Amino acid sequence: SIDSERLLGRIRSLGEIGRGIDGQLIRLAASDTEKLGRDQFVTWARASGLDVAIDRIGNVFGIWKSEGSDGEPILLGSHIDTVINAGIFDGCYGVLAGLEVIVTLKEAGLLPSRPIVVAAFTNEEGVRYAPDMMGSLVYSGGLEVEDALSTVGTDGSILGEELARIGYAGDRQPGFLKPHAYIELHIEQGPVLEREGIQIGAVENLQGISWQKVTITGDANHAGTTPISMRRDAGYAAARVVTFLRDRAKASNTPTVATVGCMQFAPNAINVIPSRATFTIDLRDPDEDRLQQEEAALAAFLEILGQEESVTIDVERMARFEPVKFDDGIVTKIETAAASRGLTTRRMTSGAGHDAQMIARIAPSAMIFVPSQAGISHNPKEYTPDADLIAGANVLLDVVQALAMR
Amino acid sequence: SIDSERLLGRIRSLGEIGRGIDGQLIRLAASDTEKLGRDQFVTWARASGLDVAIDRIGNVFGIWKSEGSDGEPILLGSHIDTVINAGIFDGCYGVLAGLEVIVTLKEAGLLPSRPIVVAAFTNEEGVRYAPDMMGSLVYSGGLEVEDALSTVGTDGSILGEELARIGYAGDRQPGFLKPHAYIELHIEQGPVLEREGIQIGAVENLQGISWQKVTITGDANHAGTTPISMRRDAGYAAARVVTFLRDRAKASNTPTVATVGCMQFAPNAINVIPSRATFTIDLRDPDEDRLQQEEAALAAFLEILGQEESVTIDVERMARFEPVKFDDGIVTKIETAAASRGLTTRRMTSGAGHDAQMIARIAPSAMIFVPSQAGISHNPKEYTPDADLIAGANVLLDVVQALAMR
Ligand SMILES: NC(=O)NCCC(=O)O
Ligand SMILES: NC(=O)NCCC(=O)O
Repeated sequence: SIDSERLLGRIRSLGEIGRGIDGQLIRLAASDTEKLGRDQFVTWARASGLDVAIDRIGNVFGIWKSEGSDGEPILLGSHIDTVINAGIFDGCYGVLAGLEVIVTLKEAGLLPSRPIVVAAFTNEEGVRYAPDMMGSLVYSGGLEVEDALSTVGTDGSILGEELARIGYAGDRQPGFLKPHAYIELHIEQGPVLEREGIQIGAVENLQGISWQKVTITGDANHAGTTPISMRRDAGYAAARVVTFLRDRAKASNTPTVATVGCMQFAPNAINVIPSRATFTIDLRDPDEDRLQQEEAALAAFLEILGQEESVTIDVERMARFEPVKFDDGIVTKIETAAASRGLTTRRMTSGAGHDAQMIARIAPSAMIFVPSQAGISHNPKEYTPDADLIAGANVLLDVVQALAMR
Repeated sequence: SIDSERLLGRIRSLGEIGRGIDGQLIRLAASDTEKLGRDQFVTWARASGLDVAIDRIGNVFGIWKSEGSDGEPILLGSHIDTVINAGIFDGCYGVLAGLEVIVTLKEAGLLPSRPIVVAAFTNEEGVRYAPDMMGSLVYSGGLEVEDALSTVGTDGSILGEELARIGYAGDRQPGFLKPHAYIELHIEQGPVLEREGIQIGAVENLQGISWQKVTITGDANHAGTTPISMRRDAGYAAARVVTFLRDRAKASNTPTVATVGCMQFAPNAINVIPSRATFTIDLRDPDEDRLQQEEAALAAFLEILGQEESVTIDVERMARFEPVKFDDGIVTKIETAAASRGLTTRRMTSGAGHDAQMIARIAPSAMIFVPSQAGISHNPKEYTPDADLIAGANVLLDVVQALAMR
């Protein structure tokens, strides 16, 4: 079994890196604070005798090629970038548990048949640069590295320049290690496991993700003098989209979710009708046909709204990923490993996007989930009890052994 | 008659002060650019031999005490602060036409029975500091000067510090000149005069204004994993308020207008359900009872919304002004003056707030409106044809003569 004190201690200390004086944890991709988090991971990996490699999109790899090991490696990992005002587990748990599994095997003097590698992928969250899961997407060949490096962030920065600035623009070609299998351990970030009192989720699929950025342009005018009938109010039109999406998702009997997370008005003055509203739409569904239907329904609504409110509506695609089915063999190994440790388990769908969905393009992949208290994530209240964190890491250890021991 | 070339030239040159490299005209109250606008006005006033006085809230007065004039002055004026991305006429027209009227009388060697004073009031727009019409409100005793000076702006600045910094924290006590009458010339900023083909509006009343700032607090959570039924989405709740206000105003047969001009989400990230939404509500109605009904309907809606969406809703009052009735004697003089010049005229209501509504607390007051093309204001497309601008200034001249000539 893994060293639970070491793992929990590292999760907590990485969770303090990037915490501001206001108490908020913010380690946006390729920022100064994320650099400090990367540095800490690299320090721990080197201290455990791993080779550290960095690729051109900034993915960091801790490589353990034990004596006599050969062939394609078992890849573990996740990410260490965070959202704004984040919790400490999202991403970091998978990276540090991956490192913990390697160190445990190493210290036990075990000699796996294959190299074992732990990765921290760049810009998984997608908050600073879209699309999300960018590092693993590039790694698996789904996005050209040059295109990814030239992405402009929400703060106007350019990813490639930021990676160079923080010292993580590596020289390895993304995809330089072709994995034999990829396993990602992660907190569920949703309510299912806790509600059902189950300790381990064997994640068999992951829902489709559609991200769009919408800009509505109307006409600025005086809030006091302009009759309602003469308004071209971009802010009101934006509000109609927000309520349309939410009310539609709520009325349906499907697992479709829709979120407007970002919103900006211009000129953003109290007595001026907004001339422009810019906002993001995050639409998800485990079923590709239904996700397409939802996108079509949104497009039809925007068409009518533009006419009704005499506003122009521009839509920019920020990310689009189809639902992903994970490798049934690995999923079964996760169930078996959990059961052998006396842990309750169920197969389930991931509501969040993860690097595993990208690596699944180039290698058999699956994920292990542990419960999230009250289903809360992307929030400082994100929490998983220690026992669950330890159980998940031990299942990861066992699955790695099942895949890589002679 | 006034010197139309001089007036139009000054309006256009003041309209270039505070224009950024992006072409936007922004002279927010007590900002660096507004200082330049104030300086220009002071320069012109001094060049015409007026005494310049500044009071503690930064109102600027150009005072003409002609030989033999005595008693309470006739006060003219408006403001030179602007909204964000403004037109060139809102406010400036009234200040510069006031100056033009004085200079015209002076150059013609006329000797009015009373001093004639032109004022540029501080922070009429209310975009940087609430409430709007602040300088004239303080001047008329409706707000303590200390309270006004300690107002915190949308940018975190403090009005008193900003006035001192730009050199416009004067030493005269607000109210130091008690006006015999106040007349404000302004563009209509609405569609009525143009639609009816009328040249001069004799403004007999002004609608009530209610400004509130609403903060909705929900819970940040993951956009992909959180079922719709478990969300406490502050952004969705804010959108419900925007559509409620607009749909209600549209459905009614009253002149009520409602506007949400400012909107901010936090943490404002694409895959995070907003934990907080902060926005402004501008509600107006010419009838005080109806305005109170609208405020009550909003409060009742917020109450239910808070329960339905499990969010907390805090409301802060930013400004509240009852409808104002102007002085019938002056309104009649405006109609008479317009008719004598062969101009078409009608009595009307002001949809915008104006300094005149505050000065009306201490002196008989009224306003003259000229048409706004397509009813557009608070927008760089704000436009009034030269002939209308000249006509308005000449009516102002005639009303001043009617009030102050022996
Ligand atoms: N796991 C996780 O929070 N990923 C971020 C990408 C997303 O699902 O929005
Ligand atoms: N005239 C004008 O635009 N005043 C600003 C105050 C208001 O919002 O009505």
